[in-house]
Amino acid sequence: MAEAPAVNTATTLITHIANLVTNDPSLGDGSPLGLIQDAALAIDAGRIAWVGAADEAPATDEVFDAAGRAVIPGFVDSHSHLVFAGDRTAEFNARMSGRSYSAGGIRTTVAATRAASDEALEANLLRHLAEARRQGTTTFETKSGYGLTVEDEARALRIAAAHTEEVTYLGAHIVSPDYAEDPAAYVDLVTGPMLEACAPYARWIDVFCERGAFDGDQARAILTAGKARGLLPRVHANQLGFGPGVQLAVELQAASADHCTYLTDADVDALANSETVATLLPGAEFSTRAQWPDARRILDAGATVALSTDCNPGSSYTSSMPFCIALAVRDMGMTPDEALWAATAGGARALRRTDVGRLAPGARADLALLDAPSHVHLAYRPGVPLVEAVWQRGLRVS
Amino acid sequence: MAEAPAVNTATTLITHIANLVTNDPSLGDGSPLGLIQDAALAIDAGRIAWVGAADEAPATDEVFDAAGRAVIPGFVDSHSHLVFAGDRTAEFNARMSGRSYSAGGIRTTVAATRAASDEALEANLLRHLAEARRQGTTTFETKSGYGLTVEDEARALRIAAAHTEEVTYLGAHIVSPDYAEDPAAYVDLVTGPMLEACAPYARWIDVFCERGAFDGDQARAILTAGKARGLLPRVHANQLGFGPGVQLAVELQAASADHCTYLTDADVDALANSETVATLLPGAEFSTRAQWPDARRILDAGATVALSTDCNPGSSYTSSMPFCIALAVRDMGMTPDEALWAATAGGARALRRTDVGRLAPGARADLALLDAPSHVHLAYRPGVPLVEAVWQRGLRVS
Repeated sequence: MAEAPAVNTATTLITHIANLVTNDPSLGDGSPLGLIQDAALAIDAGRIAWVGAADEAPATDEVFDAAGRAVIPGFVDSHSHLVFAGDRTAEFNARMSGRSYSAGGIRTTVAATRAASDEALEANLLRHLAEARRQGTTTFETKSGYGLTVEDEARALRIAAAHTEEVTYLGAHIVSPDYAEDPAAYVDLVTGPMLEACAPYARWIDVFCERGAFDGDQARAILTAGKARGLLPRVHANQLGFGPGVQLAVELQAASADHCTYLTDADVDALANSETVATLLPGAEFSTRAQWPDARRILDAGATVALSTDCNPGSSYTSSMPFCIALAVRDMGMTPDEALWAATAGGARALRRTDVGRLAPGARADLALLDAPSHVHLAYRPGVPLVEAVWQRGLRVS
Repeated sequence: MAEAPAVNTATTLITHIANLVTNDPSLGDGSPLGLIQDAALAIDAGRIAWVGAADEAPATDEVFDAAGRAVIPGFVDSHSHLVFAGDRTAEFNARMSGRSYSAGGIRTTVAATRAASDEALEANLLRHLAEARRQGTTTFETKSGYGLTVEDEARALRIAAAHTEEVTYLGAHIVSPDYAEDPAAYVDLVTGPMLEACAPYARWIDVFCERGAFDGDQARAILTAGKARGLLPRVHANQLGFGPGVQLAVELQAASADHCTYLTDADVDALANSETVATLLPGAEFSTRAQWPDARRILDAGATVALSTDCNPGSSYTSSMPFCIALAVRDMGMTPDEALWAATAGGARALRRTDVGRLAPGARADLALLDAPSHVHLAYRPGVPLVEAVWQRGLRVS
């Protein structure tokens, strides 16, 4: 279970905010971002107590002067793979240098993860969570999927659950190499003893529904078994080619279909007529030189889009939500406003959370101060570390 | 003139470096990066005193434990435009949101810069230099070009020269709006009274040789006048289309032709048979959604490539050399090794410097410690702020 979080009991005012993104359309300028200029924000007991014009702010115990900079909700990174060991630098270097390399892909990381001690896995997770937090991420989802045995999957989830509330069981990442000759038996394991061992530590169940991983029928069996055990479904869908993943996600009322790079019109329609969020992961397309997902098409159809890092050592080793925003704006047809929303409120929706991803009274005081006057600078100033300070539950953590 | 720099008089050892990039092929693995594993580096009086295997390191006054991380030469950012005022967020936001916007382009920044006080310009410059330094840049070139009057250009260069050694006179950025009806008169100004007023503060002269700015004949006149006044030439060339800029740069023995996005075979041959560096600026292509320069083609022809940020508020508002490296690897056909070299030794060559961009005995102790075991991670982990610590002339500055 997650550690009891620290909560700041003093009331705090953050004032002189040039642009405050609340993500509450009833506030500020009435746009989806609920933008308030010359704003202030009051925090009490780890929650947002008040937002409004700086010159109408209430008295508080402490005051932080934002000095004309912007404040945004902390990023909600709803898709990462951070319980792993090892490093795939040599494989990346060979791929980017045009050299052949007998890469084991995910199997390389599985072998390293199985061989690592609990302490090593936890230290690596904490290092990456701290790195993400410094970059403004205050809600982290993370997955198993590099163990692929009952014991190693449960261990990964136990370690993850000690440090984040959003834990996903991904025993169905790939068919375990130990079951290469009998994938059906691996599905039985994933839906049987492995599920039993993992469910106590997880909120979510996920499956990599893709040619070469799990087909539509296998994915349906896995997600259905997880639902029966009380887990909520999410799906790795349509990353490498067209397939059944997105429509399966909608059919099973999954919170999110992740990747969504190859979509038919029927896939887009299905998303638009559902509560399933399309979570786009531009770090993966960047790092593998793949086709960009078409966020504009998905948004124009009326579906909800989230942005996330997919942070993992093989195909997207970035923990930077600002970098994902810059790519989404440059290459996926999102406006800077849409990208900011997708990286905060969109991520919250992909995790079925209403307490994060927004800065309205009652929400968690999870927020980032930018070294810039507006959120647009996250795309306007690509690659520049603009996150100046981070609060989690009202406590300054970076 | 540049301020007298601080120099650390104590000898310092940085040890337990997993991978040390020296950029000296006579050291380490014999590659262009001169890579030494399990290395240490000694600093004396602001210079590199010794590099080698950690277990052979000399005794020093102070020891810094790199704890298995990588050390690289500080980045040499040989192309930026940092003496400016104002911000073009609204123009960027409109462009990326598909909305029309009556942008004034460079003229918008010229108006804001002319209206700013000396103090405001200097504060803005210092803010951006500090931001770049935190990201590992230890040598900065910067230019005038947003004044376009004798007084405003000289003022920009005077302010720049107080903070960096590499100052470039770019009165020929665009034809001043005040001379829109008489460009020839503006060229006379740039090669006459403006040059006289600016030359005392600058090492370099530059011209934007492009359709809509200055043609080949004008550019030749401007650079030739600058050379006669003791300035060294560099050229904004072939950014937006084919043109005479690159071959003019080679003809005039310019240190660098910058941008090089549209090159004929003859342009590439000219670069390959010269000492003129092709300085590529991927931040500009990223931020304007333009065609990438083909670094692979230029390298394969045998020319020297540098990478730089082009940091400016209009077309490339990034100060991040790591971001430029990640783009160069992903989209311009450079290997991670080539990109690191181009961002350090390449930049030094583009500034005709031999004291920076390398970490061999005698060189300036300008270096960056990465929160990663190798320089490959700068491309492998895009967007992540991996620069952990920075030394300039042996002094820890970040």
